[in-house]
Amino acid sequence: MLRIGFLGGQEEVGRNMIFLEDVSQKKLGDILVIDCGLRFPEEDMPGIDYIIPNADYLEKNRNRVKGLVVTHGHYDHLGAIPYLIEKIGNPTIYTAPLTAGIIKKRQQEFPQGPKLDIEIIYQNYKGKRTKIGVFEVMPFHVNHNIPDSVGLAIKTPIGLIFHSGDFKFDFHPVGERRSDPALITKLASRKTLLLLADSTGAENPGFSVSEKVIYQNLERIFEKAQGRIIAATFASLISRIQQLIWLAEKFGRYVVVDGLSMKTNIEVCRKLGYLRIKKGVLISPKESLRMPPEKVLIICTGSQAEDQAVLQRIATKEHKYFQIEPGDTVIFSSSVIPGNERSVQNLKDSLCRQGAKVFHYQMMDIHASGHACQEDLKLLISLVQPKFFIPIHGQYSMLQANTELARELGIPRENIIIPTNGNIVELTPNSIKISKEKLDAFYVMVDGLGVGDVGEVVLRDREMLAKDGIFVIIAVIDSRIGKVKGSPDIISRGFVYLRESKELLAEVRKLTKEIVAKTASRERTKNWAYVKANLRDGIGEFLYQKTKRRPMVLPVVIEV
Amino acid sequence: MLRIGFLGGQEEVGRNMIFLEDVSQKKLGDILVIDCGLRFPEEDMPGIDYIIPNADYLEKNRNRVKGLVVTHGHYDHLGAIPYLIEKIGNPTIYTAPLTAGIIKKRQQEFPQGPKLDIEIIYQNYKGKRTKIGVFEVMPFHVNHNIPDSVGLAIKTPIGLIFHSGDFKFDFHPVGERRSDPALITKLASRKTLLLLADSTGAENPGFSVSEKVIYQNLERIFEKAQGRIIAATFASLISRIQQLIWLAEKFGRYVVVDGLSMKTNIEVCRKLGYLRIKKGVLISPKESLRMPPEKVLIICTGSQAEDQAVLQRIATKEHKYFQIEPGDTVIFSSSVIPGNERSVQNLKDSLCRQGAKVFHYQMMDIHASGHACQEDLKLLISLVQPKFFIPIHGQYSMLQANTELARELGIPRENIIIPTNGNIVELTPNSIKISKEKLDAFYVMVDGLGVGDVGEVVLRDREMLAKDGIFVIIAVIDSRIGKVKGSPDIISRGFVYLRESKELLAEVRKLTKEIVAKTASRERTKNWAYVKANLRDGIGEFLYQKTKRRPMVLPVVIEV
Repeated sequence: MLRIGFLGGQEEVGRNMIFLEDVSQKKLGDILVIDCGLRFPEEDMPGIDYIIPNADYLEKNRNRVKGLVVTHGHYDHLGAIPYLIEKIGNPTIYTAPLTAGIIKKRQQEFPQGPKLDIEIIYQNYKGKRTKIGVFEVMPFHVNHNIPDSVGLAIKTPIGLIFHSGDFKFDFHPVGERRSDPALITKLASRKTLLLLADSTGAENPGFSVSEKVIYQNLERIFEKAQGRIIAATFASLISRIQQLIWLAEKFGRYVVVDGLSMKTNIEVCRKLGYLRIKKGVLISPKESLRMPPEKVLIICTGSQAEDQAVLQRIATKEHKYFQIEPGDTVIFSSSVIPGNERSVQNLKDSLCRQGAKVFHYQMMDIHASGHACQEDLKLLISLVQPKFFIPIHGQYSMLQANTELARELGIPRENIIIPTNGNIVELTPNSIKISKEKLDAFYVMVDGLGVGDVGEVVLRDREMLAKDGIFVIIAVIDSRIGKVKGSPDIISRGFVYLRESKELLAEVRKLTKEIVAKTASRERTKNWAYVKANLRDGIGEFLYQKTKRRPMVLPVVIEV
Repeated sequence: MLRIGFLGGQEEVGRNMIFLEDVSQKKLGDILVIDCGLRFPEEDMPGIDYIIPNADYLEKNRNRVKGLVVTHGHYDHLGAIPYLIEKIGNPTIYTAPLTAGIIKKRQQEFPQGPKLDIEIIYQNYKGKRTKIGVFEVMPFHVNHNIPDSVGLAIKTPIGLIFHSGDFKFDFHPVGERRSDPALITKLASRKTLLLLADSTGAENPGFSVSEKVIYQNLERIFEKAQGRIIAATFASLISRIQQLIWLAEKFGRYVVVDGLSMKTNIEVCRKLGYLRIKKGVLISPKESLRMPPEKVLIICTGSQAEDQAVLQRIATKEHKYFQIEPGDTVIFSSSVIPGNERSVQNLKDSLCRQGAKVFHYQMMDIHASGHACQEDLKLLISLVQPKFFIPIHGQYSMLQANTELARELGIPRENIIIPTNGNIVELTPNSIKISKEKLDAFYVMVDGLGVGDVGEVVLRDREMLAKDGIFVIIAVIDSRIGKVKGSPDIISRGFVYLRESKELLAEVRKLTKEIVAKTASRERTKNWAYVKANLRDGIGEFLYQKTKRRPMVLPVVIEV
């Protein structure tokens, strides 16, 4: 038997971390981990930086972890390495050169971290069949939107398993080879036991848009643009950045790259030969100010209207060098991540208002997802012809859509499993099912230096604080007579303007004295919890009556 | 001259409130107000219920306000009436019967409010030319997605003005007449000075999708559904609710309506004859439990995954009567309001996971916007042929897109103005420009009972509280010796789990004592502000060093 574990946050199954666990020798054996990424927080998690997979199970069994394979260089597949690699026993990381470069670069931000042991098992479109414990891993090239993206063919003691990675079929990619359907067929050799397939785009009909189409559309914008071009995209979208640079070279523009994460990525890619830029094309922001606008392309971060990213700073005139000038062309070569729609719309408005011509992906295809659509997925399934099927990389409705594609192509319902994170799937040559054992898959949240120390309660408090603020009452109580000494102090934030609410505060002070007098009678003087509970409820209710708001009420009782 | 004022929140221009002000007699004269709506808050306004227009200018000049015309029955056009009608002098409200019914119903929630004076100036697709001060208003039928939606042709002392209302051209509407291009042409009579046109859909190419297409697609779902159908839509989408009821009647299903706002709307509409439901079709949730599932249609609220709305409660098994059963079909007949994408996706996942078949508008056209797309707008502009053009109802990029359509149709650039809220546009028979006078267009936020008492500072505090929580230190200071008595109390919420941070707290207590000892020396004992500032900075910095978080630090100093 083989066990397949799905780790990660709650919504997206297996995108951040999966593991294979051999049970062929009647006991739990070698573990192979695939990817080790992070997820960005939801809007109901204020203050949280990242969510990382809960790797407790791997930590407990780290002596059996034989290796970590990373499929490509995006943070949702490698960003948790600094937090988790030591916990899971600092195993060898098997990957491709660019991915390795990005992993190393990120590790530099964690100087206390361990030295990583990285082995290259894929280079120049060629995979190297590699033994990792009882497993044998063979990476193969897939199109995505960063070079060196791979899928995996994995020989396990019970049979062959395919892992699609993040992929699409692009028959006209820009700057890299196309996916190789023949190679996939050959690797699968009609004997594949299981296919794990990317479901991100499984709800989208048709074939994915080719990067060539994107290139052509961008080219049309370059042809027409008379002033400066500012192109915002994701810092990790190396293929797109390459396209933009080639277009700049074609149309005689110099290129400024702005945005820390983007500059870092470009640096890694150039050093390793994954980005080709002609000499003299890259210039500094300052140099670009001396160029005529029609000679300048600025590639930058901020397509999601993130607060401190470059494009936002340009729009709010907080950028050191750049402001929008009438005649500028701004290209959003990116999709909008759900949750950012309003801020992106406001950013677009601001740019338009300052005189820029704005292009975004709803207007024409100037961004393509890196993920397979329905026809890509059908092609993959047809090539691999697996006996069993597990949709991964997506939320439930996407996994379900992927499942329906597999069923259309003849995989019987009982051979398909839709897991959730925390599940372990038990696979034998003849059966697939979800184990009764369930791993802990709660969010592990990273907030500043703290990993996992912010939980549901803290988050709920933050949300409550955000909604109606906080109201602290400090009552100094003379314990001999059980009465408030002087006037209770009140501190409040996020509730109402205190200066304009004098009457309300006077009433609260009066009520506080009454409640204390009633509850702190001499007999029970020491029961401050009782007094506090009464203050909390009484004052909470009073404030609600008066304002229809429910700030968090915190009574502080000081006995003198 | 005529002055046109744009009020409302920041982003969407003129959707909530516009006014026309006559200046033909060399002095400021009659004012006509169009719409009086509210806007729902952005995600960076925690706890806020609504945003209403800032009507200070109208309040100051309420003796000149001659009337309020309301174009249709949606809250973004009438929801602020209870808050503002008295301020602007309780003028007569001119509107259509359904809109009047909804206004009255809403006013019932404000029993202290004034009695409204409402005059019907449009009924059964027929407008009544009505004098309101120096203005003469002629409403005309437009398609939107609630019956009794109108556009306005307004005779002013300097010429004819058209206001499109929220509109689209639907040549196959369901349950109402189509828009009447010939009537618009006649009313415009080639002499229109100005067109104010809805820009909501101005970035979308093509013609708007007809409600008939929606009907046909919904019909296909009804044909195939074998179990219960649960259709979620907006409570105000009366036309869609009518379609769903007709389909239920056609396919022999009983109808349960669930969701307070939806029930209220349906009640108003039925009473006034705007919804036709056969006798015996409407049943209670309880009755529906005794019916076979294939005989039941539930129409409900919650298509935006709002916390307490019906569909969400069904999904979380908190609904009194309904749970998802395998075989249920769930239809989201609505778009996703920007900002709600993640929660809607999670809701869809949850429904799928429980065995429902889910249909949403990305899969097929089962929702149409009520707003004109580019071709609709071109048609309107061609029919009205205005001399001047102002795009309204949209954010800047949409207004700009609308502007480009007007330019394509030959309106010269200098005859087009893109206003922002707070602007006053000065119009003469020969010119249009933005006045130097700017009205206050800051947000007026409604939070519980408070109107306008939550401002930037309170919101900023709420955001800060949400991000890293609050940390209150209470130090009782013996003023004779300038030292902390006993151990300082610490209260914290939304920061870290205090129980698991004992060491941190011990260090904070120690630091508090040190800071007090240093700053509260006998000479300056009374300068508690100085002590507090030192505590705030010192402890804030210490916490940041230890956790990389910045909770709001509130020092409380009690002198005994």
